[in-house]
Amino acid sequence: MTEAFDLGAYMEERKNLIEANLRPVFPGEDVPEVLFDSMRYSLLSGGKRLRPMLCLATAETFGIPVGKALPAALALELIHCYSLIHDDMPAMDDDDLRRGKPTNHKVYGEATALLAGDGLLTHAFYLLSSPLGVDTERQLAMIQRLSHAAGPYGMVGGQQADLLAEHKEGTLAELEFIHSRKTGALIQAAVVIGGLFADLTALQRQALESYGANIGLAFQMMDDWLDVAGDTEKLGKTQGSDLRLEKFTYPRLMGLEKTKMRAIESVNSALSALEGAKIESVQLTEIAKFIVARAF
Amino acid sequence: MTEAFDLGAYMEERKNLIEANLRPVFPGEDVPEVLFDSMRYSLLSGGKRLRPMLCLATAETFGIPVGKALPAALALELIHCYSLIHDDMPAMDDDDLRRGKPTNHKVYGEATALLAGDGLLTHAFYLLSSPLGVDTERQLAMIQRLSHAAGPYGMVGGQQADLLAEHKEGTLAELEFIHSRKTGALIQAAVVIGGLFADLTALQRQALESYGANIGLAFQMMDDWLDVAGDTEKLGKTQGSDLRLEKFTYPRLMGLEKTKMRAIESVNSALSALEGAKIESVQLTEIAKFIVARAF
Repeated sequence: MTEAFDLGAYMEERKNLIEANLRPVFPGEDVPEVLFDSMRYSLLSGGKRLRPMLCLATAETFGIPVGKALPAALALELIHCYSLIHDDMPAMDDDDLRRGKPTNHKVYGEATALLAGDGLLTHAFYLLSSPLGVDTERQLAMIQRLSHAAGPYGMVGGQQADLLAEHKEGTLAELEFIHSRKTGALIQAAVVIGGLFADLTALQRQALESYGANIGLAFQMMDDWLDVAGDTEKLGKTQGSDLRLEKFTYPRLMGLEKTKMRAIESVNSALSALEGAKIESVQLTEIAKFIVARAF
Repeated sequence: MTEAFDLGAYMEERKNLIEANLRPVFPGEDVPEVLFDSMRYSLLSGGKRLRPMLCLATAETFGIPVGKALPAALALELIHCYSLIHDDMPAMDDDDLRRGKPTNHKVYGEATALLAGDGLLTHAFYLLSSPLGVDTERQLAMIQRLSHAAGPYGMVGGQQADLLAEHKEGTLAELEFIHSRKTGALIQAAVVIGGLFADLTALQRQALESYGANIGLAFQMMDDWLDVAGDTEKLGKTQGSDLRLEKFTYPRLMGLEKTKMRAIESVNSALSALEGAKIESVQLTEIAKFIVARAF
């Protein structure tokens, strides 16, 4: 089964599906036009679509039709996309390039970029509160999870901690605090929310929590690794920008080699968690492996 | 009954109740501290608390205990508060003073102000998806309404349109587009969400929609009016800032006198809507009248 699974084709197909559904995510009249243009500019400028892909792959693992989980998957991508727009702004990382294209504020100006981020963030909750054909208690649990993972106890708190740690030395515990929130929480939420579509045992839910947390950490470690060892063209963003900002990263703390080793260990822990709960999922297995094998 | 109602005392009591409940709105550890300090700084720096007050007053009108509607009321204030932080930033209105105190970015810097706004916005949906003891379908409807009113079809779209209209002449229709979204949508949502706690007839719901829309418009007209005719000390913000930014406002379009007349007409329409559905509510009636009588 694993032999027959073509991850590249799977990822391509899912990316296309997600992008085809991101396009019409704003119904009705696009007024004021520049705001909708700006939101769509960032939303449709590529990316791996890892978070929605994980959400769909998890739902699919437990027999949920992909179409049913799509609105939740799109909501996750809207949150991710808003965080990139705000993160790139001059007050934050001041980046000019994202996925090989000028960043949102470079094209639309800071005011519109700020509002586009706010609009995407808010609209994610509109999508996730639309009728999904799932138990409403469970739908509320999805919204709880997403707002917790994206808010001050999750991504926003991680971004703040990340900024505070610039130009400083810190401990591994501090680094894990930053990364589990800045990137880990939303990746973990993508997996857990995908699982909330299905009737799972407590053991299965726990395994998804652990899988999500571990691949989230591995992803951020590899992001740091690629920022030093990667290729600007493949990354679509300026390689070495962590160094420029004196970000507190895994390579800075423990060097390139140990960073990659730790990322591999995390992926192994993720796979063990699935195994421990007897969750057989070629998609989740292959996506986890991809995270440490990726070059972008 | 109306004679015996002391609006001043009522508003003071509600303001205290809301503020006492805003204080512990972030549970758990406040890490990173500066982010939570920044969110609380803006959240607890006063204001009329009009939106949560309207939500509670509407729920109360239909016999719902105030405590039950509180989390929704707080969510509305978090959204309002985030919008002020982002709106004051240099990329937007570039204001130094808000409610008589330095604006958030003046105290915490732009990066933290940006993140504090993002955190408050996200956490509003955490509060509104927490167990509220209401029918879960209806709770999802509240989240739908809030995300629509606050997002690109509501407040965020209105802010963008407002920015685009600076230094320009426009029509009354354009002005109403801006104001119904920028301010009106969230005020209307406060009323409608308060009503969603109760079992209402279609006629009652329609009346609340109309009441909310009309007081929302009246509120913005009076805000514009006060910016020209008001008193900086009472307003707690720099009077004349619309003029400085060449904002497109009611006084600019039709002069001070007509602006106030129109605001009074809107309040009368709001009261007629309640009457038409036989909704007797001293609170909603008096709050509507206050909107055109206020000096801050």
